[in-house]
Amino acid sequence: MSNSARRPHVVIIGTGFGGLFAARRLRRADVDITMIGRTTYHLFQPLLYQVATGILSEGEVAPAAREVLHRQKNVRVLLGDVSRIDLEARTVTSLSPIGETVTSYDQLIVAAGAGQSYFGNDHFAEFAPGMKSVDDALELRGRIFGAFEVAELVAADHEKAREWLTFVVIGAGATGVEMAGQIAELAHRTLRRDFRHIDPGDAKIILLDAVPTMLGTYSPKLQDAARKRLEKIGVDVELGLKVVGMDDEGVDVVDLENNRRRIPARTKVWAAGVAASPLGKQLADQTGAEIDRAGRILVQPNLSLPGHPEVFVVGDMASLDKLPGVAQVAMQGGAHAADEIRNGLRGKETGKPFHYFDKGNMATVSRFSAVAQIWKLEFSGFLAWLIWLAVHIFYLIGFKNRVTTLLHWAVTFIGRDRSERTATEQQVFARNAMARLRADEQDKQPAA
Amino acid sequence: MSNSARRPHVVIIGTGFGGLFAARRLRRADVDITMIGRTTYHLFQPLLYQVATGILSEGEVAPAAREVLHRQKNVRVLLGDVSRIDLEARTVTSLSPIGETVTSYDQLIVAAGAGQSYFGNDHFAEFAPGMKSVDDALELRGRIFGAFEVAELVAADHEKAREWLTFVVIGAGATGVEMAGQIAELAHRTLRRDFRHIDPGDAKIILLDAVPTMLGTYSPKLQDAARKRLEKIGVDVELGLKVVGMDDEGVDVVDLENNRRRIPARTKVWAAGVAASPLGKQLADQTGAEIDRAGRILVQPNLSLPGHPEVFVVGDMASLDKLPGVAQVAMQGGAHAADEIRNGLRGKETGKPFHYFDKGNMATVSRFSAVAQIWKLEFSGFLAWLIWLAVHIFYLIGFKNRVTTLLHWAVTFIGRDRSERTATEQQVFARNAMARLRADEQDKQPAA
Repeated sequence: MSNSARRPHVVIIGTGFGGLFAARRLRRADVDITMIGRTTYHLFQPLLYQVATGILSEGEVAPAAREVLHRQKNVRVLLGDVSRIDLEARTVTSLSPIGETVTSYDQLIVAAGAGQSYFGNDHFAEFAPGMKSVDDALELRGRIFGAFEVAELVAADHEKAREWLTFVVIGAGATGVEMAGQIAELAHRTLRRDFRHIDPGDAKIILLDAVPTMLGTYSPKLQDAARKRLEKIGVDVELGLKVVGMDDEGVDVVDLENNRRRIPARTKVWAAGVAASPLGKQLADQTGAEIDRAGRILVQPNLSLPGHPEVFVVGDMASLDKLPGVAQVAMQGGAHAADEIRNGLRGKETGKPFHYFDKGNMATVSRFSAVAQIWKLEFSGFLAWLIWLAVHIFYLIGFKNRVTTLLHWAVTFIGRDRSERTATEQQVFARNAMARLRADEQDKQPAA
Repeated sequence: MSNSARRPHVVIIGTGFGGLFAARRLRRADVDITMIGRTTYHLFQPLLYQVATGILSEGEVAPAAREVLHRQKNVRVLLGDVSRIDLEARTVTSLSPIGETVTSYDQLIVAAGAGQSYFGNDHFAEFAPGMKSVDDALELRGRIFGAFEVAELVAADHEKAREWLTFVVIGAGATGVEMAGQIAELAHRTLRRDFRHIDPGDAKIILLDAVPTMLGTYSPKLQDAARKRLEKIGVDVELGLKVVGMDDEGVDVVDLENNRRRIPARTKVWAAGVAASPLGKQLADQTGAEIDRAGRILVQPNLSLPGHPEVFVVGDMASLDKLPGVAQVAMQGGAHAADEIRNGLRGKETGKPFHYFDKGNMATVSRFSAVAQIWKLEFSGFLAWLIWLAVHIFYLIGFKNRVTTLLHWAVTFIGRDRSERTATEQQVFARNAMARLRADEQDKQPAA
């Protein structure tokens, strides 16, 4: 696709934090920007766990990127799943329901993010969805709320009911902690009065990790505070347990002494590992650049691709100085790549190294309780939660969503309800099981 | 399933308006109630078109039935798709992901509603989803917003772009009118600034019906007002056009003079016909009761099944006195069936005929404009819209959803945005097309 005006054409792959902050930083630059996204929503991924647990709607965490950017006239957003980057021809090929689109670029910012990694056990995906997309979150929402529905049906069989009331969250980083905390509050607070044969308060929520610590990037003091709070709201934290097998009915784990045991649990959530977009490997193959175990490209200090000063890799796809895979790094990286491009166009010096300014980290454990590490300061409990709340309200993009999000939070945190419990009928588990049963049923009925 | 206390056991099939109002009416009755639902949400179906067009979230129109009823201790809600009713054994068999559940009843209220009817053209379903479930609405949301995304991609090919920017709504009853009006406002107001290569204002919205009138249950004056308003906001109303064929790219229609023509249009919505749940036919087969063309059972004047005073059929499944298939009829019918059951249990006279009290009908045409017929009074325009707003706010169940719903309406009606534009990647059209393309792409890539 060519642009009629011969302004430099900057192509951004991805509508996440990296891509969005790069595009915004270029709003006054004399360039044409094309943003290509597999979905065209901008996903506020740190709140995805709230979609999975029925607090927020998908619209609240995933506004359309073109809506967010509608005032910025030098950017267009195109639907497309980028399948190939040709560094020599300087083109990007993307797939959409109508076929292939080829887009030429002068400068390229690759910000395609990361997907879930099952560390070589890809068959786990069927049993333990990850937390990377709106579809993941809705799949999990269906499974989590559905598990209580099924438990109510099988209540007379205590062992079966217990299987359905056991939730295993694998990976005790921030996402896993937040997910486990929210499932616990859902079971022990929200659903308490809704069932007749089971007590959702009996639900068992297990947070596992293969390493012996949780929230690895936080100080031991905050780790301890988070763990105490989780245990208080009914989450079993089991560290040093590695998942070695998985099926519909449970999880097989091995502890640090190599003892194997089985945890019967129908609902599993994978919050353990990430793997950068496969576009990383394509770039490495074409340049000889290195990629790390998570598929991230070892970029130059200014975030450019080795040997290709016109190409930048930011966010979860880039490996530099062991920066963590968090939204802040992506935002600042996107902005830095945009600055490099602007400087180059104005004839200014480029090659300025990217310095990440760590504004801090925080994770909510439950309502009114979080842990936060800001510069040298550490907070836990209610104060940390207030900081979490303020920061998230500030960053949520789009006025209207901010207001309804606040309302939904009020409903859940001050009240005990959840506004967004509705699941579709598309959950893989339910769909497959029901299709089987309906076919059986058809066979049984006398021919009409 | 047996109940420990030997109170009469009332089974209600369906969590829609009929089932819910029956259950509520029995809240002080000395009975045990089991409500069995295919999904366990209570769908506020008259607002489903707002989910499809990005105004409301699915949680706002479909709260969990067990949440709505959580204070009513004599009712339990069970997940299950009822596959068989055995009138002799007085049992109901339902399917859920874990298998079959058989529930015995003393009294039965069948309120399983209706699905879409394609009048014998079931293959239309793939091209023109109906408007009956949350899944339908999300499928349509994905197709409608997706059509603009694809049009932006193919903008250079004007003919193709026009195909993608043409929306055909089939069926000019209240649902069709509301849907067409909302797609028009979406295109002409909300999306106006979001695209760079297409002008969503060029979108063509066509509202078709095989009969020569629209909003058949309203007076000619209101029909006329609605039509004028629709045309003003850019909807082409084409009556007396029967759909005789359909594929991915368009619709084939025949007019009243039997002229055939083709309307190229990528996005089609089916709002034309309903067919009662197939459980109706089962009941008819077991009793010899008559069913009408829409699959509805001809019930006794008190809504009971002929020959089975312990079984009631209400809402969209029942045919009596040509009552319309609207929420009000289902609500009042459910309550009437409950009254009959209560009277029977108290030894009072039963067999009281059901009299529908018509509170009026209304349909929104666009923001600030509706038509309403209340007793002998007729309203159109802004006043009718205010009545619509008041009635819907009053009926929406659950405080929290009422507040966010109001906010979302403020965003859309006072502002011009829509808060819930996010589509999943599960839309049938997109999923199939992308799967094909990705497979092609795989073949092209050199083996790794």
